[in-house]
Amino acid sequence: MHPVINRLNRQILALGSQLCVGLDPQPERIPHFFGAGLVGIERFLQEIISICLPYAVAFKPNISFFEALGIEGLYVLERLRYLVPDTHVWLIDGKRGDIGNTAVAQARFLFDELGADATTVSPYMGRDSVAPFLAYHDRLTYVLALTSNAGSQQFQRQICGASGEPLWKEVIREVKTWSNAVGFVVGGTHADTTEAVHLAQSPVLIPGIGVQGGGYSECLIVGASSPVLLSVSRAILYPSQGMDMESERFRLTVEERIQAVLLS
Amino acid sequence: MHPVINRLNRQILALGSQLCVGLDPQPERIPHFFGAGLVGIERFLQEIISICLPYAVAFKPNISFFEALGIEGLYVLERLRYLVPDTHVWLIDGKRGDIGNTAVAQARFLFDELGADATTVSPYMGRDSVAPFLAYHDRLTYVLALTSNAGSQQFQRQICGASGEPLWKEVIREVKTWSNAVGFVVGGTHADTTEAVHLAQSPVLIPGIGVQGGGYSECLIVGASSPVLLSVSRAILYPSQGMDMESERFRLTVEERIQAVLLS
Repeated sequence: MHPVINRLNRQILALGSQLCVGLDPQPERIPHFFGAGLVGIERFLQEIISICLPYAVAFKPNISFFEALGIEGLYVLERLRYLVPDTHVWLIDGKRGDIGNTAVAQARFLFDELGADATTVSPYMGRDSVAPFLAYHDRLTYVLALTSNAGSQQFQRQICGASGEPLWKEVIREVKTWSNAVGFVVGGTHADTTEAVHLAQSPVLIPGIGVQGGGYSECLIVGASSPVLLSVSRAILYPSQGMDMESERFRLTVEERIQAVLLS
Repeated sequence: MHPVINRLNRQILALGSQLCVGLDPQPERIPHFFGAGLVGIERFLQEIISICLPYAVAFKPNISFFEALGIEGLYVLERLRYLVPDTHVWLIDGKRGDIGNTAVAQARFLFDELGADATTVSPYMGRDSVAPFLAYHDRLTYVLALTSNAGSQQFQRQICGASGEPLWKEVIREVKTWSNAVGFVVGGTHADTTEAVHLAQSPVLIPGIGVQGGGYSECLIVGASSPVLLSVSRAILYPSQGMDMESERFRLTVEERIQAVLLS
């Protein structure tokens, strides 16, 4: 049994939840009481992790938001890893992928240096660009198939001549032949995600719940054979107002927002 | 006139060269006299830049190789930037791309924090995943079209139903409608690259000369209307032997290898 898939299944069963909390630090949206600068950002994220632990199956820090804080931001990402117990999955959203020896370097950074249990990669460069990630048998790699942004129209939905199917389905079918333990990133409409989950028969990550896509409940897929994660970030991390709220009120607000997401 | 394209054209004319030197630090291949650890790696790269300046149009550090050294490796990348005068182009090979606000963060890191004049992105997620890079009008973004690795067979060469053309040509055609100043990464056979250069009528980066692809001379494209860069890394950086060579011998060897590449 794959250690990360196993952990996802166990946690989903234990919590009765498929919630993955996306960690996208946006300094201008963090309440003032956390303090300024990187220290304030780190305290904010520590608090978010602490509040979400009883509800979340996984955390999905997006490495690009940490990089945008400057190189120092990556040390924040590195330290946060230690707050997450091994009941939970630490999924670093990197969307990497490159030719052989570069992909080896990418996997080494995300898995060995930053301690990711799982990550995301782009399939565009093909099998040898993903293989070095799949070679980590105790980690889980989610390959982009269908994303939830408008731009998914341009290439992911191109109809492929040979099969008459859109590219994103070709990606799922082809990548499944590379590994028995690979996941997929799937967004789009509810019909798309349901179809993708049944086609993939693999772990699936559905991003952008709450802001980009539909509600949490409507993304729950009935009858999935593998763990499905519903990822929420802004709808939990950032209230529409309340930059002046105090510590205790912040914790209550985040808990209310988690409940609101789970009922949405 | 676009400042980076202008600089490429001027430098190609001035040097009579299209050479782009790829900086992929591989610690185990650096001669011993540079010293151990990150300090040795930084001294090695400083020396490579110094030797290559009279011959190269651009330098292409691959960010993944710096990350694989640990977060500290990114400070090396940040400092090297100051060694490159503004006659040359500093192209950080990142192969990024993500939904809107994440791509904004990625562009900020590469362009603002690390000072890249140019970078590379994957097109898989479509227009809005590339737009934040194109919004930097004084920088140049190369979009992956056809790469030189075996995996380019799987998706890049899929025939698209609507046009009957391979996906990589759809990428070039579609991306050209997004911006007047965008570049493309093109590998593959000589026939492919020639076709791509003429189809793109845009700046092109041809990677993997010497090791992955063909020789330098056979990749020279006659009649290109925009600057074409031929990127070489391992064939210049790493001799097949000579870990014990001394400083002066190293400089001569690298110069000999540059000449050998230019004649290959």
